[in-house]
Amino acid sequence: MLTTDHLIAERMRSFDSSGIRKMFEMAAKLKDPINLSIGEPDFDVPSDVKQSLIDAIQAGKNGYAPPQGIPPLREELQRRINRQFNHPNRKVMVTSGTSGALHLLMMTLLNPGDEVIIFDPYFVAYDALANLAEGVVKPISTYPDFQIDLDQVSDTITDRTKMIIVNSPCNPTGICWDANRLRDLAVLAQQRGICLVSDEIYSDFSYDQPHRCAAEFNSEAIVVSGFSKSHAMTGLRLGYAHGPAEIINAMTQLQQFTFVCAPQPCQWAGMTALESDVSHRVVEYRRKRDIVVEGLRGPYELVAPGGAFFAFPKLPWGTGEEFAQRAVENNLLIIPGKVFSRRDTHFRISLAASDEKLQRGIDVLRKIAKQGP
Amino acid sequence: MLTTDHLIAERMRSFDSSGIRKMFEMAAKLKDPINLSIGEPDFDVPSDVKQSLIDAIQAGKNGYAPPQGIPPLREELQRRINRQFNHPNRKVMVTSGTSGALHLLMMTLLNPGDEVIIFDPYFVAYDALANLAEGVVKPISTYPDFQIDLDQVSDTITDRTKMIIVNSPCNPTGICWDANRLRDLAVLAQQRGICLVSDEIYSDFSYDQPHRCAAEFNSEAIVVSGFSKSHAMTGLRLGYAHGPAEIINAMTQLQQFTFVCAPQPCQWAGMTALESDVSHRVVEYRRKRDIVVEGLRGPYELVAPGGAFFAFPKLPWGTGEEFAQRAVENNLLIIPGKVFSRRDTHFRISLAASDEKLQRGIDVLRKIAKQGP
Repeated sequence: MLTTDHLIAERMRSFDSSGIRKMFEMAAKLKDPINLSIGEPDFDVPSDVKQSLIDAIQAGKNGYAPPQGIPPLREELQRRINRQFNHPNRKVMVTSGTSGALHLLMMTLLNPGDEVIIFDPYFVAYDALANLAEGVVKPISTYPDFQIDLDQVSDTITDRTKMIIVNSPCNPTGICWDANRLRDLAVLAQQRGICLVSDEIYSDFSYDQPHRCAAEFNSEAIVVSGFSKSHAMTGLRLGYAHGPAEIINAMTQLQQFTFVCAPQPCQWAGMTALESDVSHRVVEYRRKRDIVVEGLRGPYELVAPGGAFFAFPKLPWGTGEEFAQRAVENNLLIIPGKVFSRRDTHFRISLAASDEKLQRGIDVLRKIAKQGP
Repeated sequence: MLTTDHLIAERMRSFDSSGIRKMFEMAAKLKDPINLSIGEPDFDVPSDVKQSLIDAIQAGKNGYAPPQGIPPLREELQRRINRQFNHPNRKVMVTSGTSGALHLLMMTLLNPGDEVIIFDPYFVAYDALANLAEGVVKPISTYPDFQIDLDQVSDTITDRTKMIIVNSPCNPTGICWDANRLRDLAVLAQQRGICLVSDEIYSDFSYDQPHRCAAEFNSEAIVVSGFSKSHAMTGLRLGYAHGPAEIINAMTQLQQFTFVCAPQPCQWAGMTALESDVSHRVVEYRRKRDIVVEGLRGPYELVAPGGAFFAFPKLPWGTGEEFAQRAVENNLLIIPGKVFSRRDTHFRISLAASDEKLQRGIDVLRKIAKQGP
């Protein structure tokens, strides 16, 4: 039989989701695994947010929304942003999640060959989305402490550097960047005329210090965020982006032809989410963080996460794939670090699980560390 | 103040949404206009579909879905497609509307310079999305009867032709293509190794003859469709695409990093929509079609629409913008044809309005035709 493989465009060759796919194939064979591979909360959407979503559906708010978002949500976000930053040219738009925002952003800003600095380990989509927009990714290693080294950034900047992406709290490490270094980086980017893109989707999950937004230090920073993680709305596809008006306007134009709009009833639910307090979840997840840090102490090298809901310990032996395979044999799902990195020395676990599952996961990890390869 | 205009990528220059934007700016000044500009149904989501959506939300089905769609919806769609076509290599995926499917498809298939044949007038996103994927659009005029001329297609095909996009029932003309010509085109595309992409979002709205799917005539045709128009789910962002497995797999990989997934609860609602009968809507819209065809007879040249919910009459005088401006002065919103075309000789009105609004719209159109420029 003929296949249509030869029809696929060149740009698709840059994608490699084989790491995650292999994991999911292994996972599919397990019944009721200890699943610490998932990047979404283990709680449901808050009930008041759910009710707003249902009310919007009942009220027939199911048609197209403006590409920039329904006015009440967009205007409320704009008011908050104006109050926080007071940047005359800062504008917000509603997006289909932060991935949607990042895709629009890269397509809007990157010309072929434009360089994008990312910090390794990184959220897997940065690499893919920059490649899709024909950018050239320049990863800067943050191993072993996962903090930024400003000198390395300076050394990596060329006259083709168009964008620097920061992500604090970070997926996959859970690290919150030191505010002084974030500020220095933000100032450097602005001085050099480089777009600073800050993915702050985990901003509500900052355990040990108040979250700092990159736009505090750079009036042209582009910030993407959303409701997926804080309000367990990952499948409702609701996020937002704010930055210089010209860039947001161009992203909006692109949204019109691609995403069209974020799902309308979810936008009405977003209004309620803005008022919905999730601080008890943060307390709960901080405790889970402590359980994992304590539980892995000894057999694992781990930089304690200060936010998000991930930990990124060093592999005690073998490759990520070998180690993940051994975990699967023990009914545990984790993700090999090379999915998020040019290196294959660590692995990611999610804290977003019940205490009981976390404890069982820790027990398996302690056991297989001791077993050796 | 500095602006960031210079940062916008070259690819964004190919977008021109000024026509529609200007319309919306004019529209924003009107109170309760006769709005015949809208491409979505004037009814709400059917109540059983709404209830499924609400049940899914209540049941906590609000997290990430697999990028290819939730298994029950994907499998049910696959069963129906297998039954209808019996193509061994045909696979389906769930998308964020048909625009989402088309964006994934173009990014997946087009290399820079690949030629895309579209039929003019065309849905505005084809042009934009092909440009975004660095394709080169080759429009073939279908004026004045809006049917396909196969000789013209043969003459337009080059060794760079990668894709032909068909859309029947058609937005903006409402024309359903003659089944024989659709078959001949489908066969030609397959013989020449060109991807036939068929946008069948209006398939349920075929008034005078049964809808024919392009995949009946071409085992490699890629079909995009969805629930937006048939079930008034435009703001719920739910569609699907089916075609050769290799292409659908690549689109799924791309979805993972961009759209991530179609909104999960909407996918559960889609299961109900598949069973929800909309034939009474079709009867209703056929009647609206008759009202418009009858109402415009005399002062307007109009090819009677056989489907969708649009009519595309010839301008009686002036440019589309001049004419739309005059309509706005009479509290009526229409869309100039050049938004959908390389020509500026027609305009689009939507039938998706109450009979009373349609009649008032027709009255205004008859009046301003007579007035002259």
